[in-house]
Amino acid sequence: MINGRLTQQIQFILEIDKLKTILRQTRITTNERYENSAEHSWHLAMLALVLHEYANEPIDLFRVLKMVLVHDIVEIDAGDTFFFDTSGNGTKAAREQQAADRLFSLLPADQQAELRALWEEFEARETADAKFAAAVDRVAPTLLNYANREASSWQRHHLTFDTVIARIEYMREGSETLWEVAKMTLEQAVADGYLGQ
Amino acid sequence: MINGRLTQQIQFILEIDKLKTILRQTRITTNERYENSAEHSWHLAMLALVLHEYANEPIDLFRVLKMVLVHDIVEIDAGDTFFFDTSGNGTKAAREQQAADRLFSLLPADQQAELRALWEEFEARETADAKFAAAVDRVAPTLLNYANREASSWQRHHLTFDTVIARIEYMREGSETLWEVAKMTLEQAVADGYLGQ
Repeated sequence: MINGRLTQQIQFILEIDKLKTILRQTRITTNERYENSAEHSWHLAMLALVLHEYANEPIDLFRVLKMVLVHDIVEIDAGDTFFFDTSGNGTKAAREQQAADRLFSLLPADQQAELRALWEEFEARETADAKFAAAVDRVAPTLLNYANREASSWQRHHLTFDTVIARIEYMREGSETLWEVAKMTLEQAVADGYLGQ
Repeated sequence: MINGRLTQQIQFILEIDKLKTILRQTRITTNERYENSAEHSWHLAMLALVLHEYANEPIDLFRVLKMVLVHDIVEIDAGDTFFFDTSGNGTKAAREQQAADRLFSLLPADQQAELRALWEEFEARETADAKFAAAVDRVAPTLLNYANREASSWQRHHLTFDTVIARIEYMREGSETLWEVAKMTLEQAVADGYLGQ
């Protein structure tokens, strides 16, 4: 009953469990520890589910859910590259392509093709689904950082409003509303003294 | 732009972040710590995505994904009730209903109704979608426990094969194949000496 296909699928399931050990720069709202990329992916899926009405264009929520569920799996090999780490982001694409080669190839060919295509689409940010997924992927850490003002990555990395806003502005391609939420949150963080001008 | 509806939705998003602090009895595959219910929910969604071909009946994967994403949110108030805790399971339903009242009511009425209905459907385990969601919810901890044989909840709680198998047998209503996987895994754990007969 447990044939080669099912064995491959279970090996993939066990391998991606390691995403629970990849830490991000963001802390969870209770501020007790850093967030990991597996629980972040769950949170993004919930954001997509609750906020999809704010997509600029019609989206396919089913596809967006699948996309955010798989979007960080490559970090198991490539690690989480901090969004504001300029040198790390220079090598990110190559490291993540290698990771995708290894990780998705654990799956049977048909599923490897499906999941890899979803990840590539997320990275390319050209479709309405990918643009909306990118918007939730940017608004989530903004909200968590604001919830942890003093321990935010803004504070730890001495970021400024101008740096952050320039880096996340592409999210408005996916959702003008979520972009407004992020911008107002950053403005409030400046007013509160937790983010430089 | 940020009206009452959006404010409610963001408050819900921030509130459910607490699911990342709810610990389960299962440890992650690297055995460095207990698993939390948010990353578990992500892992289940990935299991559903990769293993849906093994559902006994035709299922709607989109609905199953939404169901597993929301299935543990009530634990934010009710805590994770260990699957083999007889007294805890006696009060579980009432505690979780109260939790559902508070948590889902943070949302606008239409979304409150949608998400609560998905959770109720998961709990009732009567539809094909809910039966399959229950099957992945049982096979996941079985695989993680086997990956952590010595630190498994089987060992820590001195569980036996008969106790575990009787408690998870309902999963075969959702997937005979995943039930076979769970049963073979438990049999192997007995053979390896990590689960009593």
